[in-house]
Amino acid sequence: MASFLRTASRLRPAAARSIAFQSSKMTTAVSFPAQRQYASAAASATISNDVEQPFFPDEPKGPTVKTAIPGPKSKAAIEQLEKVFDTRSLNMMANYNQSFGNYIADLDGNVLLDVYAQIASIPVGYNNPALLLAATSPEMASAIINRPALGNFPQHDWAEILETGILKVAPKGLNQVFTGQTGSDANELAYKAAFMWRRQHERGGAHVEFSDHDIASSMVNQSPGAPQLSILSFKAGFHGRLFGSLSTTRSKPIHKLDIPAFDWPQAPFPVSKYPLDQYAAENAAEEQRCLDETERLIKEWPQPPAAVVVEPIQSEGGDNHASPAFFRGLRALTRKHNVLFIVDEVQTGVGATGKFWAHEHWGLTDPPDMVTFSKKAQAAGYYFGNNELRPNKPYRQFNTWMGDPARALLFRAIIQEIERLDLVQNTATTGEYLYKGLERLAQAYPSEIQNLRGKGQGTFLAWDSPRRDEVLKKAKTVGVNVGGSGERAVRLRPMLIFQKHHADIFLESLEKVFKA
Amino acid sequence: MASFLRTASRLRPAAARSIAFQSSKMTTAVSFPAQRQYASAAASATISNDVEQPFFPDEPKGPTVKTAIPGPKSKAAIEQLEKVFDTRSLNMMANYNQSFGNYIADLDGNVLLDVYAQIASIPVGYNNPALLLAATSPEMASAIINRPALGNFPQHDWAEILETGILKVAPKGLNQVFTGQTGSDANELAYKAAFMWRRQHERGGAHVEFSDHDIASSMVNQSPGAPQLSILSFKAGFHGRLFGSLSTTRSKPIHKLDIPAFDWPQAPFPVSKYPLDQYAAENAAEEQRCLDETERLIKEWPQPPAAVVVEPIQSEGGDNHASPAFFRGLRALTRKHNVLFIVDEVQTGVGATGKFWAHEHWGLTDPPDMVTFSKKAQAAGYYFGNNELRPNKPYRQFNTWMGDPARALLFRAIIQEIERLDLVQNTATTGEYLYKGLERLAQAYPSEIQNLRGKGQGTFLAWDSPRRDEVLKKAKTVGVNVGGSGERAVRLRPMLIFQKHHADIFLESLEKVFKA
Repeated sequence: MASFLRTASRLRPAAARSIAFQSSKMTTAVSFPAQRQYASAAASATISNDVEQPFFPDEPKGPTVKTAIPGPKSKAAIEQLEKVFDTRSLNMMANYNQSFGNYIADLDGNVLLDVYAQIASIPVGYNNPALLLAATSPEMASAIINRPALGNFPQHDWAEILETGILKVAPKGLNQVFTGQTGSDANELAYKAAFMWRRQHERGGAHVEFSDHDIASSMVNQSPGAPQLSILSFKAGFHGRLFGSLSTTRSKPIHKLDIPAFDWPQAPFPVSKYPLDQYAAENAAEEQRCLDETERLIKEWPQPPAAVVVEPIQSEGGDNHASPAFFRGLRALTRKHNVLFIVDEVQTGVGATGKFWAHEHWGLTDPPDMVTFSKKAQAAGYYFGNNELRPNKPYRQFNTWMGDPARALLFRAIIQEIERLDLVQNTATTGEYLYKGLERLAQAYPSEIQNLRGKGQGTFLAWDSPRRDEVLKKAKTVGVNVGGSGERAVRLRPMLIFQKHHADIFLESLEKVFKA
Repeated sequence: MASFLRTASRLRPAAARSIAFQSSKMTTAVSFPAQRQYASAAASATISNDVEQPFFPDEPKGPTVKTAIPGPKSKAAIEQLEKVFDTRSLNMMANYNQSFGNYIADLDGNVLLDVYAQIASIPVGYNNPALLLAATSPEMASAIINRPALGNFPQHDWAEILETGILKVAPKGLNQVFTGQTGSDANELAYKAAFMWRRQHERGGAHVEFSDHDIASSMVNQSPGAPQLSILSFKAGFHGRLFGSLSTTRSKPIHKLDIPAFDWPQAPFPVSKYPLDQYAAENAAEEQRCLDETERLIKEWPQPPAAVVVEPIQSEGGDNHASPAFFRGLRALTRKHNVLFIVDEVQTGVGATGKFWAHEHWGLTDPPDMVTFSKKAQAAGYYFGNNELRPNKPYRQFNTWMGDPARALLFRAIIQEIERLDLVQNTATTGEYLYKGLERLAQAYPSEIQNLRGKGQGTFLAWDSPRRDEVLKKAKTVGVNVGGSGERAVRLRPMLIFQKHHADIFLESLEKVFKA
């Protein structure tokens, strides 16, 4: 209760009462099993002897499964929703009033340990008390009902909100932010910045005016005003589903089919063999092959790339990893050819990999030109590092909203919570513990866990499963909500507040699935 | 005070106290001039003798201008913001704590009548008490801190939020919604739906599987998987600034320069002559010319259009109007050629034109296939009318957020406020009154107000001004915040709570500018 009380003591009385209400509602409404005994052979070895202080002592002690999922109440609600909203992708109808911390509840009294977290988006737990404070503050209410057109009529404290929030965690070497709405949006804003930057260089600098030919051709979507330039991305990469971002997305046909796309190049992304130490030489050769092909495409593609975009860990595409050396090689290549280097941290950003930004693992001395993010930030923007990336005229990067102060306020509260609980360190420590547990399970069930990956990358772990979809489905029956990526990967995306005792529950549940 | 009290009586006590606080803060912090006498010759004729009940009696009685804008405090704040955020498009640094109803305040004690309203986005007034209630509700707090991935884990009351909110105002003939994030996003989602629908027809129906060639070519951005299809838009149209939406935007070069675009067709939009009754025959011929050219492009463009997208009133492009007959002609043409008809109501939607949706003015018997909106809805989505527009498989129209329950809750409160105060009727009535006043001013100052337009379109009025930017700038010195569109239009975008007494103040202020 200590951490909760520390937070609560800073609160306005009304909000504090609201939290107390929330908290008591949680503990009465959900029936928790008594503290579990972890008797299973493989999993028991993973139980920590450390005395671990839970971040949220009011959290359920473990999952509760009362019915099949979906149960009868969920089925009725899904049927109602289907009339007005496509439910074919529905995974679970949630009751967020009954969800808390790492646990997601449904309408039938089922409460699952959630290691999927709204596709890697919930950062510090459902109904986090500190976020509830931020959400019920007068600043938040004003931001919601007086939503400004930020580019024209920013609110008086916008600089302060940025400086005490988003910019406080700006990646090294980058000190400015452009606020957008979603991950796809952030990527497209970054691509636009790259195209403007490239054309400005081609023209000879910011002071050189657009030619009449530029102006006239831009209005009929023809070159040079609408230039024949490209963004280079990687096979199996995912960067969003708007028309520009989708042209760089190469994850799955179902994401791309029937949508017109730009004729932009894709380089191969390294296909690493596991375990890494056993295939060091082969993997290094594979990475060099991919770098060589990237360089060839930069030099030879008919529509020259203005930027290269890459995920630190390819997420939707199947949790594909590459070494820091590969990414340093990309930075060197892009620098050499005067192409911008955009790191898409939409899914990897904000603490889950044991660093605040996943690209911190690379040891770059020359930072990326732009870093995009969304998801755990509950907001999106792109960072840039110098004035060169500001377009030469106003209204070139502009839209009505230009972000959302409400989401920026929430992200500030998320950052404060991450700092208060030292959550980046937590994902590093818990991730290592979880990885070891998975290693032991992989030894006991080698056909179930293949190509285990993400060592040293916090809780951002994954493995291949020959019966992936069945495993995901059965996990619900033992109280775990977990997702997949690519064709056969199980991807773990727990929240930043996922601790060793949660890892124990997860590992035990997973073994139950394997045994069944 | 009656309307406010009616709202307040339904409130939780804490929220009601909060509103009372807000309201008293407003009345004490801003110094209001005494009730004005409208002595000016041209404007005085416009003063209504009706006894008009003000919606918000606590609103300022008129503007206050204390300093040049920006004043010293604003200048300091802008300087601070410039370090981290591009301020070259900044119009006015606002203090939303001090803004109320139709009035926007800055940091130097200036309080302006706002007929620009965050680029046509604020629907029912700054710090609207009913919206404050919604923003401080437990549902809102939960929606903010437990943001779901709606396609996978919708909240249990998502159907109810849609049904009692967005869908309650669905345009005639359309009964489903796909929720997005912004106007650009909504348009791109609609375009994607159109492309999928078109290709499905070409394949022979929803049951026909994608071919191997479709699948393989989609992954390398080539036809047929990434088809050579297009969206037809109109010259001077604006549909957003993402890569797909920008390819249909034809407003200004500064919006498009240096950004790669699809080779999509643009048809001419009618250039009407004013006054309309004087040029009826010429305008009809011009509209027929545009329809003929549209049909030619549909039939002949190498990348056939899957849809035609049009704004009911071209807004960013200069407030260009066409007749209902033109739009009925477009509907007929698209029907004839089996092309979808998308109406972009991002700026015109939600009550400002004297109808909830501007396309209601057209008297269509065959509704549009999709209607997109954002701005005053503080949210975006696209409506569609039948199951044919649901893609044949899940995950084809999908993203992490799929909208935002917090914004959907706010839009529900906006709809309730529109109903409670009968605001669509108000924009019709006030618009007519305002138009007449502008007509009189145009007669008195014919060189200042040219091509006055928007008669019968609520408060969605505009005119051309030979010294437009100067007029906009000087308007601030007499207490009015007003915006432009296109190269020389002054566009009025007051909120839905803009009443006759506001119109009087606006007209009087405008005359001051003309006289100066």
